[in-house]
Amino acid sequence: MSTSGSTQHRVSIALDARSYDIVIGTDVFALPSTYEALPDATCAALVSNHTVAPLYAQQLAKALGERYRKVIQVVLPDGEAHKSWQTLNLIFDALLAAGCDRKTTLFALGGGVVGDMTGFAAACYMRGVPYVQVPTTLLAQVDSSVGGKTAINHPMGKNMIGVFNQPLLVVADIATLTTLPQRELIAGLAEVIKYGPIADGAFFVWLEANLDALLARDPAALAHAIKRSCEIKAWVVSQDERETGLRAILNFGHTFGHAIEAGLGFGTWLHGEAVGCGMAIAAQLSANVGLIPAAYALRIQRLIERAGLPVRAPALGVQRYQQLMSVDKKAEGGETRFVLIEAPGKAVLRGVPDADVATVLRACGA
Amino acid sequence: MSTSGSTQHRVSIALDARSYDIVIGTDVFALPSTYEALPDATCAALVSNHTVAPLYAQQLAKALGERYRKVIQVVLPDGEAHKSWQTLNLIFDALLAAGCDRKTTLFALGGGVVGDMTGFAAACYMRGVPYVQVPTTLLAQVDSSVGGKTAINHPMGKNMIGVFNQPLLVVADIATLTTLPQRELIAGLAEVIKYGPIADGAFFVWLEANLDALLARDPAALAHAIKRSCEIKAWVVSQDERETGLRAILNFGHTFGHAIEAGLGFGTWLHGEAVGCGMAIAAQLSANVGLIPAAYALRIQRLIERAGLPVRAPALGVQRYQQLMSVDKKAEGGETRFVLIEAPGKAVLRGVPDADVATVLRACGA
Repeated sequence: MSTSGSTQHRVSIALDARSYDIVIGTDVFALPSTYEALPDATCAALVSNHTVAPLYAQQLAKALGERYRKVIQVVLPDGEAHKSWQTLNLIFDALLAAGCDRKTTLFALGGGVVGDMTGFAAACYMRGVPYVQVPTTLLAQVDSSVGGKTAINHPMGKNMIGVFNQPLLVVADIATLTTLPQRELIAGLAEVIKYGPIADGAFFVWLEANLDALLARDPAALAHAIKRSCEIKAWVVSQDERETGLRAILNFGHTFGHAIEAGLGFGTWLHGEAVGCGMAIAAQLSANVGLIPAAYALRIQRLIERAGLPVRAPALGVQRYQQLMSVDKKAEGGETRFVLIEAPGKAVLRGVPDADVATVLRACGA
Repeated sequence: MSTSGSTQHRVSIALDARSYDIVIGTDVFALPSTYEALPDATCAALVSNHTVAPLYAQQLAKALGERYRKVIQVVLPDGEAHKSWQTLNLIFDALLAAGCDRKTTLFALGGGVVGDMTGFAAACYMRGVPYVQVPTTLLAQVDSSVGGKTAINHPMGKNMIGVFNQPLLVVADIATLTTLPQRELIAGLAEVIKYGPIADGAFFVWLEANLDALLARDPAALAHAIKRSCEIKAWVVSQDERETGLRAILNFGHTFGHAIEAGLGFGTWLHGEAVGCGMAIAAQLSANVGLIPAAYALRIQRLIERAGLPVRAPALGVQRYQQLMSVDKKAEGGETRFVLIEAPGKAVLRGVPDADVATVLRACGA
């Protein structure tokens, strides 16, 4: 494996004592030097899933073996449907069975589900051990592995149970994307596309011009998209770690998206697919309430559609959508709030009258 | 209900943005004014158990009703055996079913188990909501409600899964101790006694002189014991919130105690009973390794025994004890460490050779 040092980028998240770097590069996750600045510990626990572990766990375990006396592996079932207490407990069971102490470092090797659960487990194991994100999906590299949101799902809502817990390091290796199924690459593009309308009008234009290269997995295009996405996310998270304000803009499309996921049953649509559709609805809603011209909403929808993401909402019925959205974490004092686009590259969080929500849902096929 | 303003004490825990007060008094928990400085919220969730709720939940709910538009009650099964994922999920289920938003304030009304689970649930519900401790047992008032340690048990070890999460306020109402069974009062005295040997030689002497008054529930004696205990705990926690050093001294007797609890099955002995016995063993160990004179160990053991706490270890076998202690959170790199007394009012955390541990366990009946 080559070091490919020249292709490495570093994006820093500034959070005082909890600051950390995102390393973006090719063939970096299996290099022992990638982990050399981590705190000393006797034990490392590599958490992955049944899909990713056969591809990359051995390489990572080998690199970790040069630093840690004991490296244990925990392999979880794959998929959003397993983002539950039961699966989380598999991590605790393995850590305790191996006698892992409170300095043990966890490594999340996989997509968003593995990352969210490993980060949550790290927060709770013996009241907190450190962890590292090694995301292997585009979605995790540009979004879920960065920013310290960890969670599991509850039957009544996605990501309802979790904590903010920043990793020590994120290692986004573009080489791991070569094995990613196209459906998952496309789902990841939903979160990439998100950063344009909410924070960077120029990036949105770049995406319109480079979408085909991204779909063809052009490494340079992917590297730029990941880096720019991480920079925007780092900027947002550094200002509002615990989502008391600004950070909510990262949930563009997510209120509708979460309702789709919960309504269809977690795992039926991929998270990114639901978010893609949710952004299409939210863009339309932004135009309907007069924030942006209909033409800009259409450009957003067009880009989502070109990526291969759904833009029509599953027909669950408007009432069911509204019921599912009422438990959303952004709801406060009974009102559901939405991230809307108020100008290219600028988002706002605001309450919307139920009637307007119903109208846009109906128009989008709900 | 009288306000009894003259009997109120306040002890502050200094933790920067996470600082808070412990209010110690008689007939204070049911006064709306006790909660007037808490942040605004629409919803309050009162979490209690089947034993405590019938005694005090209505009074607390009434006081909260003057501040919060919606007050929901969650009543958990009582006892250490229920400090589990399953019980924790009852809190999440209730919060989500009631549509509680991310500003909801949780109130833990009960003993250590209710407090630990409510604090953990508050940390995890929608990635964190605030909570208040209203401890109704002596043990919770002097120890578990203060300092932000929250957890549930794992079959392989007590308190293995949890987080540090400081409450906004602790309300220790001495009036609630009038309904406490004598066995639980005695269990609470174990944690009171603890503070003498580890931090305050004069308080230890005071306890020797006032133990009978405490056992007879003399309100003035209880108030002093609770206040002094909270002051010592506040001093320790303010210096070492996350137990990277000093705070470990609060676990005097707990390494042996946790092994007793796990070995007998959680709930067979009360936590305080196991800690009382654990302190008797740890005092002996401190003398055996030459830190304190045998006579001082005997004084500690004598006070524990006079309180009505066990000083002989359950006969689980020395090997079983050592196995159970090897997963203790204070273990690091394979070595189990113990809190030992090195002088009256002064504790130290150190590793002890297995042979010395075996000797003291055998001598104490293990």
